[in-house]
Amino acid sequence: MLSNIRIVLVQTYHPGNIGASARAMKTMGLADLVLVNPRCFPDSEASRLAAGAEDVIDSARVVASLREAVSDCVQVVGASARLRSLPLPHYDEPETMARELVASAASDPVALVFGRERFGLTNDEIRCCSHQVSIPANPDYGILNLSQAVQVLAYETFKAWRQHPDSHYRPVRPAADRQPTREQLDHFHAHLSRVMQASGFLTQPHARTEAQLQALFSRAQPSRKELSLLRGLLSSLEEPREEG
Amino acid sequence: MLSNIRIVLVQTYHPGNIGASARAMKTMGLADLVLVNPRCFPDSEASRLAAGAEDVIDSARVVASLREAVSDCVQVVGASARLRSLPLPHYDEPETMARELVASAASDPVALVFGRERFGLTNDEIRCCSHQVSIPANPDYGILNLSQAVQVLAYETFKAWRQHPDSHYRPVRPAADRQPTREQLDHFHAHLSRVMQASGFLTQPHARTEAQLQALFSRAQPSRKELSLLRGLLSSLEEPREEG
Repeated sequence: MLSNIRIVLVQTYHPGNIGASARAMKTMGLADLVLVNPRCFPDSEASRLAAGAEDVIDSARVVASLREAVSDCVQVVGASARLRSLPLPHYDEPETMARELVASAASDPVALVFGRERFGLTNDEIRCCSHQVSIPANPDYGILNLSQAVQVLAYETFKAWRQHPDSHYRPVRPAADRQPTREQLDHFHAHLSRVMQASGFLTQPHARTEAQLQALFSRAQPSRKELSLLRGLLSSLEEPREEG
Repeated sequence: MLSNIRIVLVQTYHPGNIGASARAMKTMGLADLVLVNPRCFPDSEASRLAAGAEDVIDSARVVASLREAVSDCVQVVGASARLRSLPLPHYDEPETMARELVASAASDPVALVFGRERFGLTNDEIRCCSHQVSIPANPDYGILNLSQAVQVLAYETFKAWRQHPDSHYRPVRPAADRQPTREQLDHFHAHLSRVMQASGFLTQPHARTEAQLQALFSRAQPSRKELSLLRGLLSSLEEPREEG
C-alpha cells in the first residue's frame, strides 16, 4: 500500500527542500519520489538535508512534465495552499484525503503533488490532478515551507495506513507492567487506612476521605511494582522513628 | 486557548532549526516560544529560516533551565523519539495528546517540549514533564528533523483547536456553486434520455442503462452551472450536423 504512494515535487527551487522532503518521506514509510524539472538536482544541499534518506534521493526519478510523472496513477492529489476556483474535488482535511488515498493505493499507484515554493501549481498542472487538498492553517500566515507540507501530508498518510485494517501495523510498545488485582488493591487501601489512623490524620474511619484518596491512587493506575513501592513506604511510616 | 500553548526547545544545536520551528509554529497559530540554553541565538540563520515568522523569533524568551521554562504550566508534554522506561504517561498518538493539551490550555498555560537534535531530552528534563508523546514513524528510520516534529505536533494541536467547540473556528471556504433542484435534474435526465435514443445508442427506453448513467452524473454532484453546460452540450448533439 505505502509503496504505491508517490510524492511528486514540481520545479522545486531550493535543492535543500528536496533533501528535507526525502527525509520527511522516509520517516513516514514513503520511498517513491519523482521530480518534475527541479532547478538544481542532483545537488549537495539535497544530499545534506536528506540526512539518512539518501536512498530516496538516489532512487528519485526526474521527468520533464507532471503528466509524465502521474500517467499511471488512479488518484492524483494536488497540494495547494490556496483554494482555487477550479472545480476539482477538494479535501478540507488532510486526514480525509489520506484515508481515501491509502484506500486507492491498495491496488494502484497514486500521487501527492506539491508545487513550486512561491507559485504552487499552475492551472494546467491542477488539470493533471483528480483532487486538491490544503492544510488548514493560520489565516494570517498559512503557507508552510514545502518540506514541512510534505511532512504533514506524509504523516497523515502514514497514520491512515497504520489505521487501515489491511496494513497489519503493529506499534512498538514497551513491555507493560502488570496491573494489580482487586485483592492487592484492597490490601493497599486497608494499609493506607491504618496508616492514616495511626498517624492521627483520621481519628476514626472516615469513608469519604478514604474514598477520595483511594480514587486518586486509582487514577494513577499503579502497576504491581508501584503498589509494592507504596506499601513499602506505608510500612516505613508505620515503624516508630528512632529518637535523637 | 492557542495563546496558552508554549513551545519549548531545549539546547537546540542548529539555529536554522529554531527559525524553521518558529515558522512552523506561526502557520499553526502558535506564538509563545521559549528557548532553553540554545547553542547560537540570536543568529542570522534563525531569522532567515523564520521567513515571515520573525515576530515569533523576536518575542522568544531565553532561559537557563527547563524547570524555569515550564514552572507556570499545568501540563508539560515532552516530545521524545524513543519510548523511555520512565513511567510517565505516554501518548501513542499525537492526535490524542493534542486534544487533551488544547483542553488543558482553555484555562492555564501548557507546554510542548522538544529536546536536542541528537540526544533528545535528559532523564532530569523528562522529570519536568507530565506526559510524553512520540510521533509514530517508520521503525527503520523514525527520527524526524526537529522543526518537522514541531510542525507535525503544531499541526495536530491546531487541528484539535479547530475541532474544539469553544474555538469558534470558521474555515475559509470558496463560495459554493448552487446545487440543482430535483426538477432541474429530472429535466436533465429526460434530455439525456432523448439524446441517447435519437442517436441510436438506445433503440428504446432502457431503464437500467439510463439509471446507471444518471447515477454517474449524480456522483459528480453537478452544480447548476455545470448542469446548464451539460444541457447545452446535449442540445448541440441533438441538432442535425452541417453537411459537407
